Amino acid sequence: MNRRMILYILGKMLGVEGVVLLLPALVSFLYGEESGLSFLIVSVILGILFLIFGKKPPEGKTIYGKEGFVIVGIAWILWSLFGALPFFLSGSIPNYLDAFFETVSGFTTTGSTILTDIEILPKGISFWRSLTHWIGGMGVLVFVMMLTSLEDDHSMHLMRAEVPGPEADKLVPRARHSAKILYEMYFVLTAAEVILLMFGGMSFYDALLHAFSTAGTGGFSNRNASVAYYDSAYIDGVITIFMILFGVNFNLYFLIRLKKWKSALKNEELKAYLGIIGVSIVIITVNILHIYGNVAQAFRYASFQVASIITTTGFCTANYDVWPELSKTLLLALMVIGACAGSTGGGIKVSRLLILVKTVRQEIRRILHPKSVTVVRVNGKKIGRDTMQGVYIYFISYILILIVSVLIVSIDNFDFATSFSGVLTTINNVGPGISQVGPIENFYSFSPVSKIVFCIDMLVGRLEVIPYLLIFSPDLWRRKF
Amino acid sequence: MNRRMILYILGKMLGVEGVVLLLPALVSFLYGEESGLSFLIVSVILGILFLIFGKKPPEGKTIYGKEGFVIVGIAWILWSLFGALPFFLSGSIPNYLDAFFETVSGFTTTGSTILTDIEILPKGISFWRSLTHWIGGMGVLVFVMMLTSLEDDHSMHLMRAEVPGPEADKLVPRARHSAKILYEMYFVLTAAEVILLMFGGMSFYDALLHAFSTAGTGGFSNRNASVAYYDSAYIDGVITIFMILFGVNFNLYFLIRLKKWKSALKNEELKAYLGIIGVSIVIITVNILHIYGNVAQAFRYASFQVASIITTTGFCTANYDVWPELSKTLLLALMVIGACAGSTGGGIKVSRLLILVKTVRQEIRRILHPKSVTVVRVNGKKIGRDTMQGVYIYFISYILILIVSVLIVSIDNFDFATSFSGVLTTINNVGPGISQVGPIENFYSFSPVSKIVFCIDMLVGRLEVIPYLLIFSPDLWRRKF
Repeated sequence: MNRRMILYILGKMLGVEGVVLLLPALVSFLYGEESGLSFLIVSVILGILFLIFGKKPPEGKTIYGKEGFVIVGIAWILWSLFGALPFFLSGSIPNYLDAFFETVSGFTTTGSTILTDIEILPKGISFWRSLTHWIGGMGVLVFVMMLTSLEDDHSMHLMRAEVPGPEADKLVPRARHSAKILYEMYFVLTAAEVILLMFGGMSFYDALLHAFSTAGTGGFSNRNASVAYYDSAYIDGVITIFMILFGVNFNLYFLIRLKKWKSALKNEELKAYLGIIGVSIVIITVNILHIYGNVAQAFRYASFQVASIITTTGFCTANYDVWPELSKTLLLALMVIGACAGSTGGGIKVSRLLILVKTVRQEIRRILHPKSVTVVRVNGKKIGRDTMQGVYIYFISYILILIVSVLIVSIDNFDFATSFSGVLTTINNVGPGISQVGPIENFYSFSPVSKIVFCIDMLVGRLEVIPYLLIFSPDLWRRKF
Repeated sequence: MNRRMILYILGKMLGVEGVVLLLPALVSFLYGEESGLSFLIVSVILGILFLIFGKKPPEGKTIYGKEGFVIVGIAWILWSLFGALPFFLSGSIPNYLDAFFETVSGFTTTGSTILTDIEILPKGISFWRSLTHWIGGMGVLVFVMMLTSLEDDHSMHLMRAEVPGPEADKLVPRARHSAKILYEMYFVLTAAEVILLMFGGMSFYDALLHAFSTAGTGGFSNRNASVAYYDSAYIDGVITIFMILFGVNFNLYFLIRLKKWKSALKNEELKAYLGIIGVSIVIITVNILHIYGNVAQAFRYASFQVASIITTTGFCTANYDVWPELSKTLLLALMVIGACAGSTGGGIKVSRLLILVKTVRQEIRRILHPKSVTVVRVNGKKIGRDTMQGVYIYFISYILILIVSVLIVSIDNFDFATSFSGVLTTINNVGPGISQVGPIENFYSFSPVSKIVFCIDMLVGRLEVIPYLLIFSPDLWRRKF
């Protein structure tokens, strides 16, 4: 393993974080807040680390997929460790583990919080909290790629390890170029949301923070009541639509940019994604009708919550913990499904679900017609053995990690719905769960051990298991590479 | 598809059930109970069906794997439909769906009950209830094979579809002979347990019924308080040990019979199975120590419950629903793991878990050393692609069915722990769950829809998914074979 190259790229990445931190520092100073200083301190530390590790590239520059996974896995931890410092140093979150939890939750676009009162946070701190969603949504590495010059074959390995979904797709080969195009579209959509939210009466600051959260499918709000604070059908509607938009595979926007409307709209994953959303909204609307009295209100809350959960954003406009069990269980199922591959959302992704369901169907056909050749196709494209194997491995590890996590968290002795949905919501990067981690609750009261488990689950969920399986594998560290 | 042959074998099977029903009829008459009549009526009906369908074999006798799955799938439903009639006709269970639930629960060796008072059942009825466990444990088809003459290639397809575990193993080729050997060992172990239980002060009747339940890893007791009724450390101990014994792959007893002790004890699945049991007992003993005050008591209840749940028997000596969440969650995890392949127990089986975990480990190695050839081995034997694929398909279908079932059951609006553990305990053929389906509760209050879902889950769990995927596949019925 090329350790020097790993250190070099990590050094570079920390440098970029140092520069990024100047943004919240600026916001703090504009609002005349002292906490701006903590951003500057961390920025300086990161600058020094950059000068030590990231300035001069080593001689042997070759890296492979293995190094890609390791760099991505460590990079996310480092960004979170340093990104947590401003919360801690400014005194906004006095406990460093809590600050780390909040930052991991931010970068992984989970949106679970340990804060009991969000509205007392300084503006600069709250800005940084939401900005982590926006950066984490597209990927920390993709962000760095856009800003710095990495050779394309390096970027490729990094991008493969970071972009969610069962297949490394067409965008990957020309990674740096792709990163720029991705961010261009990301930026345009975010800006559009900011403007539309301001039409609904939000201040620029509030609109910006909520747009960051929507774009990253994160879920942090600067209001304790989340989006329910604004109590506006217009704002609910705008955010619902943008959540759904950010849950779509960005390749489709790329196709639309190229005016290839037909192939974009014929996409099988998109159809399944919209179908699941539609059916879920209908079921929940009917199921909660008796609570809200009329269809319009029930539809408004149902559609917002379905979009919020399946895209793994996690905003709330209603305390769905008091909804009937069917609605709650359906929301838990949507958490697992998640958004489309190649979007900013979490979960196992609609395309993986498609592949899994089709695998089962294919097996039935194989038993019925042992001599016929059957293949699994998605979007008319044959799914290769490697991709299938990858999906299986992902799914198996996902379930095993889920079970172990619930076991450890249950030591805290919260009721089963709390432990189970707490793990489910973090590993799928959603944010809120049900019961004691429901929409009006938070993660404050868990033990440090559980909080660490949740942090691992959030990272494992965001990077789709493999990087951390590698990093935690004794095999990686045992041998000299 | 050879429909005539399917009808012929099914007819034969119903005939065997008709003969079997004479046994509880006999018990009823010995105790002078009127309900004996209901057994005779059903027995006559089954005799007539046998004469119509099962007397004369059709000309074309060839069947394949596909027919094997279909026969097994339908046979279990038919045995349950007719086996439920005596409960219904005798008035012991006035609702036929409830009687069907109880019978499915019996044959699939689940042990979940809709009865609120078991002790008022007539002796003959209670005997039949426990006998279904004993027959279902080894498999309805294996039972028929032992008693009737089916050609070996027929038996093979049936046995493959019915015997639990990831691989059709060495016992299968000489199926009829194997069925006899299996039943011989099964009989000896059951008899040994009856004798040992009688030493503990149990009546012959009680001992027989509890031995039936233990042998089939079922869990029905003729006492409302289950095994807790006897409140005897000796009886708890005997049943604990026999539960663990019946959770072992019967091939190992076959090896022991051949005096191949070494290869029996070196078995990897056995070691993992005993290891999981040991670790779980330690964790739960420590976790519940404060409830029982001393280690001996805590160990007694912990070991009994761990053995009962991992073997998917479902007997209870303590209301574990009041134990701390860690213990309850661990028990839920043990439900999923289940016993060894080729035993009478349910769950996904220890050997499948081994294969899944090893697959993940192999994938890590593949990423670290892309050029090396890696294979998954269990017991030193290479696991082939087909077996792996089978394990994946099983696991994926299992999780998908689990999610859909919980969603449907949640319509009844019981708390999440109830819906979730209700599905978990039925699909893994355990018996009790937690919360409203906890050890001192029952399945009486669910809606008919939920009860049907539970019945499907019990059957799907016992026959390991594939037969019912086939039967519910439109593809099977659409074409003329």
